[in-house]
Amino acid sequence: MRAVTFQAPGEVRVEEVPEPALAEPTDAIVQVQASGICGSDLHIYHGRVPIAPGFTIGHEYVGRVVEVGAAVERVAPGARVLGCFQTACGTCFWCLRCEYHRCARGRTFGHGAAMGDLQGAQAELLLVPHADLTLRAAPEGLSDEVALFAGDVMGTGCHAIASAGTRAGDSVVILGLGPVGLCAVQAARVAGATPLLAVDTVEARLQMARTLGAEPLHLEHDDVKRAVRAATAGRGADLVVDAVGDPRALELAISLARPAGNVTAVGVYAERCEVHMGLAWIKALTLRTGLANVIGHVDRVMAMMEAGALDPAPLVTHRMSLEQAPEAYALYDRREALKILLRP
Amino acid sequence: MRAVTFQAPGEVRVEEVPEPALAEPTDAIVQVQASGICGSDLHIYHGRVPIAPGFTIGHEYVGRVVEVGAAVERVAPGARVLGCFQTACGTCFWCLRCEYHRCARGRTFGHGAAMGDLQGAQAELLLVPHADLTLRAAPEGLSDEVALFAGDVMGTGCHAIASAGTRAGDSVVILGLGPVGLCAVQAARVAGATPLLAVDTVEARLQMARTLGAEPLHLEHDDVKRAVRAATAGRGADLVVDAVGDPRALELAISLARPAGNVTAVGVYAERCEVHMGLAWIKALTLRTGLANVIGHVDRVMAMMEAGALDPAPLVTHRMSLEQAPEAYALYDRREALKILLRP
Amino acid sequence: MRAVTFQAPGEVRVEEVPEPALAEPTDAIVQVQASGICGSDLHIYHGRVPIAPGFTIGHEYVGRVVEVGAAVERVAPGARVLGCFQTACGTCFWCLRCEYHRCARGRTFGHGAAMGDLQGAQAELLLVPHADLTLRAAPEGLSDEVALFAGDVMGTGCHAIASAGTRAGDSVVILGLGPVGLCAVQAARVAGATPLLAVDTVEARLQMARTLGAEPLHLEHDDVKRAVRAATAGRGADLVVDAVGDPRALELAISLARPAGNVTAVGVYAERCEVHMGLAWIKALTLRTGLANVIGHVDRVMAMMEAGALDPAPLVTHRMSLEQAPEAYALYDRREALKILLRP
Amino acid sequence: MRAVTFQAPGEVRVEEVPEPALAEPTDAIVQVQASGICGSDLHIYHGRVPIAPGFTIGHEYVGRVVEVGAAVERVAPGARVLGCFQTACGTCFWCLRCEYHRCARGRTFGHGAAMGDLQGAQAELLLVPHADLTLRAAPEGLSDEVALFAGDVMGTGCHAIASAGTRAGDSVVILGLGPVGLCAVQAARVAGATPLLAVDTVEARLQMARTLGAEPLHLEHDDVKRAVRAATAGRGADLVVDAVGDPRALELAISLARPAGNVTAVGVYAERCEVHMGLAWIKALTLRTGLANVIGHVDRVMAMMEAGALDPAPLVTHRMSLEQAPEAYALYDRREALKILLRP
Repeated sequence: MRAVTFQAPGEVRVEEVPEPALAEPTDAIVQVQASGICGSDLHIYHGRVPIAPGFTIGHEYVGRVVEVGAAVERVAPGARVLGCFQTACGTCFWCLRCEYHRCARGRTFGHGAAMGDLQGAQAELLLVPHADLTLRAAPEGLSDEVALFAGDVMGTGCHAIASAGTRAGDSVVILGLGPVGLCAVQAARVAGATPLLAVDTVEARLQMARTLGAEPLHLEHDDVKRAVRAATAGRGADLVVDAVGDPRALELAISLARPAGNVTAVGVYAERCEVHMGLAWIKALTLRTGLANVIGHVDRVMAMMEAGALDPAPLVTHRMSLEQAPEAYALYDRREALKILLRP
Repeated sequence: MRAVTFQAPGEVRVEEVPEPALAEPTDAIVQVQASGICGSDLHIYHGRVPIAPGFTIGHEYVGRVVEVGAAVERVAPGARVLGCFQTACGTCFWCLRCEYHRCARGRTFGHGAAMGDLQGAQAELLLVPHADLTLRAAPEGLSDEVALFAGDVMGTGCHAIASAGTRAGDSVVILGLGPVGLCAVQAARVAGATPLLAVDTVEARLQMARTLGAEPLHLEHDDVKRAVRAATAGRGADLVVDAVGDPRALELAISLARPAGNVTAVGVYAERCEVHMGLAWIKALTLRTGLANVIGHVDRVMAMMEAGALDPAPLVTHRMSLEQAPEAYALYDRREALKILLRP
Repeated sequence: MRAVTFQAPGEVRVEEVPEPALAEPTDAIVQVQASGICGSDLHIYHGRVPIAPGFTIGHEYVGRVVEVGAAVERVAPGARVLGCFQTACGTCFWCLRCEYHRCARGRTFGHGAAMGDLQGAQAELLLVPHADLTLRAAPEGLSDEVALFAGDVMGTGCHAIASAGTRAGDSVVILGLGPVGLCAVQAARVAGATPLLAVDTVEARLQMARTLGAEPLHLEHDDVKRAVRAATAGRGADLVVDAVGDPRALELAISLARPAGNVTAVGVYAERCEVHMGLAWIKALTLRTGLANVIGHVDRVMAMMEAGALDPAPLVTHRMSLEQAPEAYALYDRREALKILLRP
Repeated sequence: MRAVTFQAPGEVRVEEVPEPALAEPTDAIVQVQASGICGSDLHIYHGRVPIAPGFTIGHEYVGRVVEVGAAVERVAPGARVLGCFQTACGTCFWCLRCEYHRCARGRTFGHGAAMGDLQGAQAELLLVPHADLTLRAAPEGLSDEVALFAGDVMGTGCHAIASAGTRAGDSVVILGLGPVGLCAVQAARVAGATPLLAVDTVEARLQMARTLGAEPLHLEHDDVKRAVRAATAGRGADLVVDAVGDPRALELAISLARPAGNVTAVGVYAERCEVHMGLAWIKALTLRTGLANVIGHVDRVMAMMEAGALDPAPLVTHRMSLEQAPEAYALYDRREALKILLRP
């Protein structure tokens, strides 16, 4: 079958790879109808993730079940499904606490041997372990373009807001308006965030944030700190979401949060960095980190997508064929796209 | 000064009463600019609350501060304020747990000796104990008609939703579409309730619920149980709010909630009644009861009102003068009004 | 194999029944080393649960795995295991919310067709569905007599305390000192309940509660309400656990809870009953009901048992052979035993 | 009156200062019966806190009320009281969320102009603002030596455990066994932490931790990481408390916490420092920071002290007179004392 594989930093290739086969009774095989290119795919593309040449990448997908193992109970061959970017077993210490993102047996699609050795979704067929937790039947009315977001970026946006215990009427600032940041804007809006501010440097993204109900702030042209203070009676925000993953974003987040407030870093951190612990401490902040518990949110995300309350469709800027993947990655790398869909 | 006083079941009177004076350093005196008539005033009107003839009633109000005690720090004479329907001290066992609705020294306006012996707000002047917690500076842009709701019915609606830990994407059913129920519809909508269903028998109220974003269900003409099951994949609702206060409403709420779901009874219960404990128990429900923790919610409610996310203005059906109070009560008692405002 | 079967109200029999066989890849077969007789078995014995004659009963057990299906990952043949009284799938709407006690596919051992048609544990062999969630490897140091409690009565005791959000320093009252009530006493003690009071009418049980760290109160000889008020500065208890399952216990619980406090009914309710909703409402209580989420607690329970912090061994009053089951039930029915163990 | 004042780094003096007088109706004057020297006093002693020469220091105290303002309702002249190290107003945005430690008007005793300009407790008399929240009537049976801890170090220990949502059966590691760390050990024990490990380099402190129910680990002589893994089935701890306030402690805490676990830094951070954000992120940790919400915990702390469940008395190593303060500070600075009491 055809699949997008990593070759070297800056180089992906569409090539023939072996078809997957069921290995465990909890597995399913999915025929991929659409996959997405995500910001974390760019980390791979840039060579920052240890991954062997020839490994299939991609972890956002929607498709149709073609085969299931004997223990799969919730999806059957023929079912149209959407999937989560990682798997969870449902029975370990972490799953028992609904911390599916840290499942003891969790594997991430298309991220190489270190993250579970699980081939990716930018391919014609996909092996899905623990299918009963990793897949969901996709509601009829949900287009591929919307469904694709549920198990990755929109799930991450919702996690960023919900994990901090945000309530309607809480003030929220989103830093970074890539797909995750814009999904966090939507998640905050639907949860009643008031006020809701969104910070970036790209005008088009700020405009989209405005359309989605946030007050846009240009990182360089606006006085962000003053604007946040003005919108919160001088206090700072109840929650600041760092959807960037850069020490400068974290520094800004800490400075914008109110005393006893929350900072949630969904942007990826991979190294040591300097943190203004003194400011965080004197403010008595709570800092939440890490990739999102998407499996824990996907039911609610799907319900809100089906009702139209969450709608990531405007984020899809490009639709291309699987064979065009090299071009798609180059284009995404030049930041000329928000979300690219690939169809086999 | 002029004030609306209870006289006998079915009889209120506007009469001359003594002006209030500061008694404690934490008191304030407010010149009332508008007061509302509430469903619980009707309980008094019907003689179901022990209250002495001549006692001033009313507990929804907005006004201007005319005098404050020496310990009042947050509001000053001249400030336009909105108030909560009951007081809290801020320092007792309950206030220390943010359970302001059960403050050890809490007093409810206009409810007679048994509930704190505190004269009511349907008057020209109002004594407000513990003014720093009971009052809030009313935002500029908030009309009297909107502000009036923050410290009573809208606070109750928000409490009904938030106290159950409702998250965006949870399914919610509201039973009873009087002012509290309609405010609960708004509060559920702003918190992301999906789906959101609203049950009553009055067509106009069902229409308003539809306008506010809920799916209306007529208690008698629709098959409510079937509709709730259909909207929740057969499970029942995550939260059912009983905004009625009648054993039949509680019975319906228990039957509509999903297993391990929530029922919140904000409608008033005053007596023993038969409850289907067997069904509640087999479903493993959590039942929350009691008047709302309005002081604990009023900041967020005001923020959302100011942003327009909550807007109770459509609920105001009548604006009358304080002197017309007897006529207003009679009209409200005939269920010809949703919310009546009285202006001195 | 030999098994204890229900025959008619008041009659159980030890007879030959077919051995179980694996049906699903998630199943395991366990050779039972010890099973317990529980208060809910007495409900069956009294004919109050719809169950066919010849159905094997029992749901407390410890044993050794003899065979597992292809999808079982966490336990292997030969492993000594303890089990939960009911099963959960780990992937449904409820399991995704850690509400394992209401799993969409949950089945209860030994409770007849209506509760999952799953043969019971008072037998030589036991079929265990969804073994990865239902079973746990039993720690070395844990005796059968202790391990047996983890997945049923002690899990229920811990659920009663933890589900109410109890914190160290909260006041707790336990009503009813059968095995569940005494386990709730232990769970409350280990969680820092202060003060901790325990109510019953049986002197021996009150003595045991005292040994476990509670202040015992005799329902008839002591003035329970006064004692609870005295121990809580007049407020009432933060949490009252109804481990009885009788409207009079619920009435007492409501009267003993403090305003804005909690009542948790782990005792079984199966019918409508009169509840003092007026008092519950004026107090603004939260009432939690239903069987316990044992699977959600079993890891912590086992850790505390292993450390000796929870020790139900003193509750075991009788050790008998499986063949003595009829005698054991009769004895238990006469309330001459707290916990009886049966060994095949 | 006599008071201990800061003079210069390394120099405190006992000198005559003016007696305090009531300034606000919410104030009280307390005659100090005992005060403590705390680790944060050492920060002042070392010149790391901006504070003017001649400022009275100290913030741990127990005493007798001599005078109260007109708005004080909960304590009266003559009452024996214990106090919290900082004040809270009870009515601001933060107090309304029970975040008393970040009260908009909060002032810390004995910490100079920058932290509220409030003279300290190592003196004969103390002015206590917002006395209804800052003071508590000390229970009869509580000695001065125990009562003194409730509003500072023991409150901090309890906050460290409770703020992370710790439940009985959770695994906890305490880093740093000064008074705060040892109080955190007690708080963890009473809340059911299992297992509970405690790390330091001082043998006497490790011995005390063992006495209090923790497994002691010597930072240099033991393999701390291996021991924590061994005690937690290889996972790491549910909660690691950093009671040190040093980047190396934070680094260790992050490495010892389990994936999706918690780190709470109650040790003081005042500056930027390098943090292994990459490890924290990949583990998806939650990091809580800041001084403790002592007012939010003091009721429960007192209840547990009164019941003997928390007993800091063994931590008091020295009892001296107020006049001996210079000697006491020198001794404490040489780490020859755990807790020193000063009596006027």
